[in-house]
Parts: sequence; C-alpha cells; structure tokens
Amino acid sequence: MTLNELQQQLSSQKIDACIITRHNQFLGQDILPSENRIHQLSGFSGSAGTLLVFKDKAYLFTDGRYEIQAARETNPEQIEVVITNGQSLGTWMQNNLRENKLKIGYNPWCHSVSETDFWKRALKNIEFVELPELLADSLLDKKEVDIFEHDITFAGVSMDEKISLLTEFMKKNQLGGFLLTSCDSVSWLLNLRSNCLPDTPILRAFAFVNALGEVSLFTNDFNQLEHELKNYKNQNIGLDCKHAPRALFSLMKKYKIWIENLPDPIQAWKAVKNPIEISNLKQAHLRDGVSLVRLLIWLEQNYAGKTELDVVQKIHELRQENTNFYSESFDTIAGFGANGAVVHYHPQTETNLELKDGSLLLLDSGAQYYDGTTDVTRTIAIGAPTPEMIRDYTLVLKSHIALATACFPEGTSGLALDAIARAPLWKCGKNYNHGTGHGVGFFLNVHEGPNSISSRNSQTPLAENMITSIEPGYYKENHYGIRIENMARVISCNNPEFELPMLGFETLTLVPLDKQLIDKYLLTREEQDWLNCYHQQVFEQLSPLLNPQEQNWLRQACAPLD
Amino acid sequence: MTLNELQQQLSSQKIDACIITRHNQFLGQDILPSENRIHQLSGFSGSAGTLLVFKDKAYLFTDGRYEIQAARETNPEQIEVVITNGQSLGTWMQNNLRENKLKIGYNPWCHSVSETDFWKRALKNIEFVELPELLADSLLDKKEVDIFEHDITFAGVSMDEKISLLTEFMKKNQLGGFLLTSCDSVSWLLNLRSNCLPDTPILRAFAFVNALGEVSLFTNDFNQLEHELKNYKNQNIGLDCKHAPRALFSLMKKYKIWIENLPDPIQAWKAVKNPIEISNLKQAHLRDGVSLVRLLIWLEQNYAGKTELDVVQKIHELRQENTNFYSESFDTIAGFGANGAVVHYHPQTETNLELKDGSLLLLDSGAQYYDGTTDVTRTIAIGAPTPEMIRDYTLVLKSHIALATACFPEGTSGLALDAIARAPLWKCGKNYNHGTGHGVGFFLNVHEGPNSISSRNSQTPLAENMITSIEPGYYKENHYGIRIENMARVISCNNPEFELPMLGFETLTLVPLDKQLIDKYLLTREEQDWLNCYHQQVFEQLSPLLNPQEQNWLRQACAPLD
Repeated sequence: MTLNELQQQLSSQKIDACIITRHNQFLGQDILPSENRIHQLSGFSGSAGTLLVFKDKAYLFTDGRYEIQAARETNPEQIEVVITNGQSLGTWMQNNLRENKLKIGYNPWCHSVSETDFWKRALKNIEFVELPELLADSLLDKKEVDIFEHDITFAGVSMDEKISLLTEFMKKNQLGGFLLTSCDSVSWLLNLRSNCLPDTPILRAFAFVNALGEVSLFTNDFNQLEHELKNYKNQNIGLDCKHAPRALFSLMKKYKIWIENLPDPIQAWKAVKNPIEISNLKQAHLRDGVSLVRLLIWLEQNYAGKTELDVVQKIHELRQENTNFYSESFDTIAGFGANGAVVHYHPQTETNLELKDGSLLLLDSGAQYYDGTTDVTRTIAIGAPTPEMIRDYTLVLKSHIALATACFPEGTSGLALDAIARAPLWKCGKNYNHGTGHGVGFFLNVHEGPNSISSRNSQTPLAENMITSIEPGYYKENHYGIRIENMARVISCNNPEFELPMLGFETLTLVPLDKQLIDKYLLTREEQDWLNCYHQQVFEQLSPLLNPQEQNWLRQACAPLD
Repeated sequence: MTLNELQQQLSSQKIDACIITRHNQFLGQDILPSENRIHQLSGFSGSAGTLLVFKDKAYLFTDGRYEIQAARETNPEQIEVVITNGQSLGTWMQNNLRENKLKIGYNPWCHSVSETDFWKRALKNIEFVELPELLADSLLDKKEVDIFEHDITFAGVSMDEKISLLTEFMKKNQLGGFLLTSCDSVSWLLNLRSNCLPDTPILRAFAFVNALGEVSLFTNDFNQLEHELKNYKNQNIGLDCKHAPRALFSLMKKYKIWIENLPDPIQAWKAVKNPIEISNLKQAHLRDGVSLVRLLIWLEQNYAGKTELDVVQKIHELRQENTNFYSESFDTIAGFGANGAVVHYHPQTETNLELKDGSLLLLDSGAQYYDGTTDVTRTIAIGAPTPEMIRDYTLVLKSHIALATACFPEGTSGLALDAIARAPLWKCGKNYNHGTGHGVGFFLNVHEGPNSISSRNSQTPLAENMITSIEPGYYKENHYGIRIENMARVISCNNPEFELPMLGFETLTLVPLDKQLIDKYLLTREEQDWLNCYHQQVFEQLSPLLNPQEQNWLRQACAPLD
C-alpha cells in the first residue's frame, strides 16, 4: 500500500487520520524488513518512527539521531518530519491537537492497552476508532520459521521448573491463567527459540498458561487464541496491559474474562540470570574475547587499505568459527573517523570509509552464542592519535571506571547510576546522547528490559545477577566517536568492612583497551589500578586459548601502564 | 476530642473508619502545636503522622525515624504503629484493605484533590465519604495574626509585577482566574508575610486572582471564598489539584466552574531567585557566617560544662543581634555524641547532654532574615576526635565536595545529583537515611519545593538561580552524627572550554569546616583545592566584619591544609 492509497482509504472510511507504527502485534520486538510499514509508506528506513497520516498530509515522528536521514528519505511535500526526543505520540497529540474535534483510527494489534488508555484519557476531543483491517494483511511476514529447543545445558533451568514458578505466581494472585504477550517471556519460559529474526533467536508468539501450567502457544493463528480464551469466561486472567496489544484486551472483554492487569512476572525473572547461565556466559565471553583479540591483531597488521566493511566481515569470520556461535547479536557498527560520531551508524556501501592514519575506529559488535549473548565496543587508534583524542578517550574511560567500580545499595535505580557514569564527562562540559547501559538477554534480545541505566525510564532497581552493558561514550561531530562498552554482572559486594549490603559490578567482557589512547596522568591511582587489574585478568583468562604469537601480542596489550 | 469520643462518633454516624491527618486546609504547610490533631488524639508528637481510626482500633502511620518515639508516646492497646517508609496511606490501604467493603470518612479540607482521586480509583471496595464537620472546629488556631509587607528592597520584585506574570499565564491558558492554595505562593505573590507560625513568616491564606489581576485573600473566612467563587460560573479557573484541598474542588463544582487542573506556576517562579534576592541572600549569609564563627570561638573556649541547650541558646543570642534578623528558621538541632546520630533530634530538657571530650557536636540551625533564609550544619570535634571520626567526617566531606563541584546539563533531576553525592559514601559501604538537598525559600519556608535532591520524588530539574541545600551525612548509631550542610545557588558554568551549557553550584554559606576532623590523605588534590579555596573565601568575606581576635581565630581556621 502507498501513502496515497492509505489517504484515499481514510476518505472513504470517513476518518480524519490514522496512526501507523513500526510494530506488529509483538510490541517492542524487532521486526523483519518486509514488515516495516513505516518504510513502505514513507521511505524512511530508520529504526524508530511513527506516522500520523491525515488525508492531505502526514507527520513522521522520529528521534534526534534520525533527523537528517528522515529528511533525506521522505518527500517533504507529503510528509513533515517531527523530532520528538522522548516525547510520546500521545503527548504530542495532547499539545498539538487540543483544539480539533477529530476521528483517528489505529490498529489495535499495534498499540498497548496502556497507550490507548492514555490517549482516551488525555484527548477527550479525539474519537479513537479501531481499524484492524486497515493494514492488517502486512503485520507478519508469512515466511517459514524453524522452532528449536534451547538445551537445558545452556538455559540452566527446565521449562517445567519455570512453568511452576508461573503457576505459583498465579496461585498467589488468584488467577485462572496468564496471557503472555512478550516474545522474550514466552521464549524464556518454554526454552524455545526460532530463526524468525536474523540476529535475535526469539520465538515470536503469545502464550496462554492456565492455572494447571498447561501452555497454548500462538505464533500466527490468532483465531485459535480466541477459541482458547472462550474457555475462561468469568475467570481472573493476568495480562500485562503495558505490553499487551489493545486487540487482545478487547477479545478478553468480549468473552467476559476478568482481566487482572499485572506486570508480566517473567520479565523480572529472566533478567536475573541463573548460575548455569552465568557460568555459560563467562565461557561465551572467553571465546568472544579471543575473536576480538584476533581482530585487534589483524587490524594492527593489516589496516592499510581496509574499510569499515572489511572490519565487519573480518569480525564475522572470526566469530563464526567459535563453538556455540549462532549469529551476530546485531548488525556490527564499525565507524571510522566522522562515521564513528554517528551514534547508530552501520556501514553501507555508500558510506563505507577506508581506514587511514590519524583517526579512531569505533567497533560495536556482539554474538548470539547458544551459551550467551555478547555485546562489546572498543575504540581503536588507527595510526597515531592526536592529544585531543587521547584526552577524550581517557575521559570516557574515567566515566566507564566510575560506574564499573561503583557500589550502591539495593533499590538504586538505573537513573542514579547513569549520573555516576556521566559525572566525569559532565565536569569537562561533555556528554553523550544515549543510555549508559541496557539489560542483555541470554540467547535472546541483546537489548532487554526491565533494567537499564539511563536518564529516562530507568526505574527498575538493579539486582544481583542482572546483566547490563556499561557503555559511556563521547562523539565529536564530523571527527570521531569514542565508546567503551563492557558487559557486567550485578554482584553483591562482599567487603567485610561494609556496614550495609551493597551491590556492584563484575566485568564479563574480556578485551583489552587501547593503551595508546590513555593518558595515565589524567587517571587517579585507583583508576590506574582498575585498568591494570582488568588487563591482567584479560591476559590470564584469554592467553591459554591463544597461540604463542597471539599471547605475545596480548601480553604487551595487557601490560600495566608505565 | 479524645480518640474514644471520635470512635463513638464513628458508630453514631455509621462509618467504619476515618482518616485524620496533621494537615489543616493549608496542605503541606507547618502547623501550630494547638492544631496538631494527631498529637491530641494519639499522644504522638512527631512531625509526620496520619491516623486511620476504626471503631475499636486505630493505626498510626509514621516513618522510620519516629519508630521508637511513636511506640513510646502511644497506647498500644488503642493504637498500632505502622512504619511506612515512603509508602502513602493510599497504597497501604490498597495492600491491606483490599478484601473489605468499608465506608471511610475523611475531612475534604485536609486532603488534596489528587490524593482523594487516587483513593477512589485504586480502592473500589471502599466508599469514601466527606466529613468536614467531624473535626472541623480545630483545623485552625484562632489566635490574632499580624500581617506585614515584605519590603521591595528585600523581595526585589513588586507585587504588581508578580501579578502581571500571573495574568499573562492566565491569558496564555485561557483562564478567567486562578485559585492559589499554597501559602508560600500567596505570600510570594503579594509580598506579604505574617507572624502566624513561629519560624516561618508565611501568610496562611488562599488567594483568588482573576484575569484582570484583582486579588481576593482568604485567611479564615471561607464563606467569603464561596461567595467569590459564585461569580465565576462557566468560566475556566485554574487549580493545582495536587495541592488544593478536595473541599475547594467540590465548591467549584457546585458553582459550575470549569476547573483547569494546572500546576501552580508560582511554585516554579519563586524557586528561581531574582538578582536582588540573591544579592540580599549573600548579605544575609555574611551576617549568619559571623554569628557561626563567634559560636565556634565561644565553643572552643567554653565548651567545658556546657550542654546542647546552652549551644541552642548561644547561637540564638548571637543571631538575634544581627541586622534584619526575624527569627530562627527552624528549631536548632544541637546533637552531641549519640544524640547526633538521631537524624531529627531536637534537644529537650530530658535528653540534653553535656559536651564532653572525645565526641562530636552536630549543629544544624538557621535564621529567617528579612533579606533571606539561612540553613547550615557544622559538625564540631569536642576534645580530640578518634581516627574513626576523622575518617567518617572526611568521607562525608568527599560526598559534599562531589556534589558542590558537580557540573550537569540542564534538565538533570535531583535524583541524579543525589547519586553523585552518595557515591563516595556508597563506595565505603555507608549511606545516610535522608535527602541530600532541599529548596530554600526567601524569607519563607526553609524547606521549599519544587526542587529537591533526593532519591525520592526529585523530578524537578534544577535551574539557574534556584537555591538548594547540600547536606550529606553519616550517622553511627549510639555514637555520633556527622552532617556538612551548605546552601548553594545553581549557576551556569562559564567555562569557555565546555562544549555544552552546564550548570553547577555556588556555595552561599560562609562558615569554616573543622580541620581537626579532616584527613587530607583521604582527599584528592582537587578535593583539597576545593576546601582551601572555600576557606580562603570564608576568611576574605567574613574577616572585615570581625574584631582582631576573631580575625586571628578565623585565619587559623581557614589556613590551607598542611
């Protein structure tokens, strides 16, 4: 369907406007390119966008990082680009459509119950109408999907054990069942994965679990789901209204089910990794570290004439030799020079830069191993770095260390930790325009909630055995980008001198930092100690897996600051 | 009225329970002792408490700092004490009264619209009924009150200018008037003050301002207010439902007024001090600093045989000699030894300790000057401090300096800044159980919103020319308490090397810190520099106001760390 065709439909259906999102019914989950209705309708290919289409005009909402790209990819005569940093569509409508009496259509499969409730409360002048048929045909790609079991030796806990956690939860909350709508919850609960999405081995499905622990799975036949729900008339059924599509809520209402709006408990359970997952994840990081070390050696010896895409290809080749490798965990970011300063850059043939002496390469990549998901960023000097690059890199390192060495009481929010990471950069009048850390799934989404470390929406307190990235950065527009990202586990600080129980971080990523970029005189003694200690660990853990030449290289790379 | 009499009334009115707060109709504002219905009904004298009275039982809700006191002051056969740290009464009822069908009465003058709305939404099983008459007679003390003008040379901006800000705001929001319900907003707007409360020169009144800027003031005759509201039928009138009593909302409904729920804009305006207020406040801090220096000298020479109450008396005598002195800004906290570890301790005859060698005196005090409100805490070694005291004091100093020297972008919340202050203590496994900073009014409430620096409810970003306290602490139960509190102004950081506009703090308080308690080897070079620089400023600014003996003392006290 084209934008014009959609606009004609609005006229024929007597609707003033309609809302189109990038989501299908699996809200918040990655989509396939063929499912991207924002791209199809507007030409915009960025990963964040919503359209509000009027008969004679359309608004494309996206965030600041896509400002230039959205302008380039859309037709300004048809579409006005609106940059909404953090502001929701609902709030925008509240501020901009206050005076109008409007009838606005939306697809109830593509919006959560909470979001649509907010609209209805906040925008009394607008009549919102459900239009599931409008674009329903293209919600899900019909390709064949392989579903496979995630072995217990990887997952650590059996499906049965996980289901009994859920039945206990239902018993406590007097529920006759729970309708799970988050793909990662379903995948985790059933120890199932699929090849549906390229870098995310998630199973895209809803699951209904009743009080007996019987599970029904719905991957695309939603008539089947309706059929199932009919059996639960007048029963209390759990639904996480923040993450469940409106259409499911309406179905449940239709069959007179009592909806108990409760946070999906699996989101919190899967965020806390079990001992086998943690021990697996450490193994995965050994292999991932070896691949990165080999890449760093290759780069040092061969960078002349190579491009960003060569680096992307090389790290892929190195990783895919590893035991338990399944896929990358996201499209590798290899940004050289000015490209490194574009926060969500992925090299394309048209933008691909050749590596040349005197700038920085920002390399952000990761893998899905059956025994864990990795995500690591290193910034590497190509040729001799300038003093400014060294100063800026050292500042980002100070930010990284500030958080990596932080202790904090239970209950501390990600927002508080975010400030601890930023404080050293703030003191020098600098900042970075992205979050400081995100949860990481276990052979699931590389970005997963509920925990995050950010100045926005980081209410969930960190708890022991949660996994987070720590990734402060600094971006000098048109020049270079710096980011230092490790994955870390939340641990309890076992310091006998502590009066209060405190949490801290254990770094999982094992890849040396480029010492050429570090000015030790800008580091405190404690910061130097952290770096030397980290490097010693990297060397001790990786060297048994390397050949003698590689060992020699790593010994140098990990030698203490002199 | 006694608790028994109240319980009999419940029976005769066929109500299951009723809610009694410490508030009168001026929600969130200090009250007079004679207005304290919690004290009258339960015997509990703490500054935070709510009663939920059933026919045969009553619950007293208070927070952790009052746990012991509440148990001591109440009769356990009548009253069960519930410690609710941060949890609201509404949330407690949600968790504990879910199953019951109840009819609960409340005084609509003593609860905000938002609070009662929350109850009604969250507690479908409870019928809430308005009972204004139940305890209405004792809401306000009937004592005579003097109202006086706050001179423009102090306030900096005339009433007329302030009112025109408000009429502009009303025009922009298409309002026919605004009903102001926060006393400090009313006092600020009209440059009026009163002697109603002992340490807070606030005028207790509601004010109605219409679109022409005409003001009607209501201090106790609320029939008059009803009479006024009648004139605004079918008009849009602004009301801040978070801070307005339910009873006013009902009155406005009764007269068919369209209520526009908007945050009272004056709260944000008065938080940002004008240039004359700031210059006045600096003058007030000079005088206040001189009094504190004289106190420190007196203490050093005379502490033997003196008690906490002697210190309270002495600082009062010293301050009241100052130009523009009006009153203390709160009851002085002088906590020696173990008393210092009780966070909200005020010395009483029964608890009054004598100062003895080998412990610490925590002195938290302030004054209301016509030209500004002060609030300062110093911790002073009495005799020789132990190494542990020195270490703990130095840690608190590190926390204080971390925040005092922080830079942060506009939009940073108080919650983020709170973590920056706590990080040094957290790293040593310590914490403190109170906020890090509060806004300070200008010859108004010594604690004022909307800005605060705390791990709870600190959403309001700090802005240039807001005033805040910075007051980390550490409390060793049964031994000693440490707090270092300065008042600071939010300033824009004018560092030409900064890429981004940043905010920071300018310290206003001018009182030396006790160098006996500082271990310079625990401070970084930058922290030492901050301290030496602060002390130099204290000496330079205060010494012209001191006699030669005092100057000599201050020169020593402010000499750089050796």
